[in-house]
Amino acid sequence: MSAVDLIEVWRGDLREGVHQGHAVICDAKGIVQSWGDPQAIIYPRSSCKMLQALPLIESGAADAAGLTTQQLALACASHNGAAIHTQRVGQWLDDLGLAEPDLRCGSHMPQDREANRALTCTDSKPCQLHNNCSGKHAGFLTLNKHLGGGSEYVEVDHPVQKAVRQAFEEVTGETSPGFGIDGCSAPNFATSLAGLGRAMAFFATADQRDDTRSRAAARLTQAMMAHPELVAGEGRACTAIMRAAKGAAAVKTGAEAVFVGILPEKGLGIALKILDGGTRASEAAITALLVRLGVLDSGDPVVGRYLTDPQKNWRGFETGELRLAPGFAN
Amino acid sequence: MSAVDLIEVWRGDLREGVHQGHAVICDAKGIVQSWGDPQAIIYPRSSCKMLQALPLIESGAADAAGLTTQQLALACASHNGAAIHTQRVGQWLDDLGLAEPDLRCGSHMPQDREANRALTCTDSKPCQLHNNCSGKHAGFLTLNKHLGGGSEYVEVDHPVQKAVRQAFEEVTGETSPGFGIDGCSAPNFATSLAGLGRAMAFFATADQRDDTRSRAAARLTQAMMAHPELVAGEGRACTAIMRAAKGAAAVKTGAEAVFVGILPEKGLGIALKILDGGTRASEAAITALLVRLGVLDSGDPVVGRYLTDPQKNWRGFETGELRLAPGFAN
Repeated sequence: MSAVDLIEVWRGDLREGVHQGHAVICDAKGIVQSWGDPQAIIYPRSSCKMLQALPLIESGAADAAGLTTQQLALACASHNGAAIHTQRVGQWLDDLGLAEPDLRCGSHMPQDREANRALTCTDSKPCQLHNNCSGKHAGFLTLNKHLGGGSEYVEVDHPVQKAVRQAFEEVTGETSPGFGIDGCSAPNFATSLAGLGRAMAFFATADQRDDTRSRAAARLTQAMMAHPELVAGEGRACTAIMRAAKGAAAVKTGAEAVFVGILPEKGLGIALKILDGGTRASEAAITALLVRLGVLDSGDPVVGRYLTDPQKNWRGFETGELRLAPGFAN
Repeated sequence: MSAVDLIEVWRGDLREGVHQGHAVICDAKGIVQSWGDPQAIIYPRSSCKMLQALPLIESGAADAAGLTTQQLALACASHNGAAIHTQRVGQWLDDLGLAEPDLRCGSHMPQDREANRALTCTDSKPCQLHNNCSGKHAGFLTLNKHLGGGSEYVEVDHPVQKAVRQAFEEVTGETSPGFGIDGCSAPNFATSLAGLGRAMAFFATADQRDDTRSRAAARLTQAMMAHPELVAGEGRACTAIMRAAKGAAAVKTGAEAVFVGILPEKGLGIALKILDGGTRASEAAITALLVRLGVLDSGDPVVGRYLTDPQKNWRGFETGELRLAPGFAN
């Protein structure tokens, strides 16, 4: 099976473009519905941060460090590098007796408009706290302090990453075929889309179980839904969609157009991948699936923003629209 | 025939993504080689600005206004809104006895780093001169003054756009199946990829003919190659590739991942479209075809930048690479 058309880009009467990919909806037993190839092997990229955070809680490291739900949300975040993110991560490192140079995520300009403007207009450089993954790395450092590992916590054979890989493989139900180095320098373990979907269903049904891992998964899901502004930031899809879902879904994007959803009330998990890495399509596709599953109201402004509103040009004229490909989510 | 894989995105040992599309190489007689479907109907978007500029010269409007080669290059440009662009377009309008409000392209923030920074850090808004299409629109206004048309020169039944459509259909050799409204509010006429490729071959062989249209096409091609910095700007693919091609090619990008090439020394035209609109892929694909055709040296830094250099993360670690899909341009 190969990728299928998921999102079409229309201008005037012509389909100007199309985004192909794979999508899967899973429950605790397995695949409920899929489009494209559920066995396609992908890198989940940042969409699996809640999986990478499991050992942080299971090990007892999170409670030993007294982490708050805000910090757990940041551990699962790809944030905008706004003050609400960088200040909290900076304080977190300080609480650990560590500092910004202990991070191994690298630096990039923040996406947050005000933070970006402040750096740009003072000729300042960003630091590693601005990296969208700095919360995940603070979580890695918290686990590392608990495990007593060395400073290079992103190396694949480091105790932190070994713990991440074990949790990742157990929850996806697959032996990972390999890993790539992510933008933040951490290993990113490959999985089938179905494996990622199963993992999301594990999170979605975690509050129905009482084992250590399930309790950890439920805490992370609740933390993400409780602090959507910390998981991404203003103007970002994850934040806007979680606010609109009002506690019915935790969602997370990943680079190269991966998107996952955790639907506790439905006991369902979603995983999707746009093959070309087009974010407009992964955002439209997760929105469509959440509407289909009754988590988002089709009339909600967030649905218009990411899927149904007309595309407009620089003079505000309507020039086209995104459409669901025939057979996808409709 | 459908789109085929053109550019692959690799991370570690896994093909993380792929961009599909269509590409065609044409000479004066027609298609020389193609990938995907040459008959696919596309919007050329900004890749056809040299076609939209033909009536400007053919009508005598350009010479009546004493346009320079710099202004002809700007008429074909999707520029960065840098000072070198906005100042020239502003002066051009002034020379016509017109001003910024006479433009109908709308405003957006300039891509040029310094121009963007200057506006951002002074809380200033961009004007229509910053619109990447302002040079094309100054060309429309120059033609409109010559034709004595009304102020709404972007309306499809306006004499300016009627002249553009006639030239577009005659050079592509097709009756356009329709049009969409472009980002700059001008009509953008649809064509087959083969039609766009034939048009580029018409431009590439124009200096071998002496008719009015061919002379106009040759002037526009020479203007683009003489002023690559005016056609796009610093850091942009069109500018970097034309500089590296050293007069052997005029190239132009268009929104939604269209790219065209005019190769006068070879008498060849190139047109390609990435179906998902991914610019990294259209830039890599045009680079690959120009290397294949001997216009770019495979060792040139611009080839590394857009195609062969490893992809690096925020710490400078190599994480992957772009690859040509099997069967494309190799």
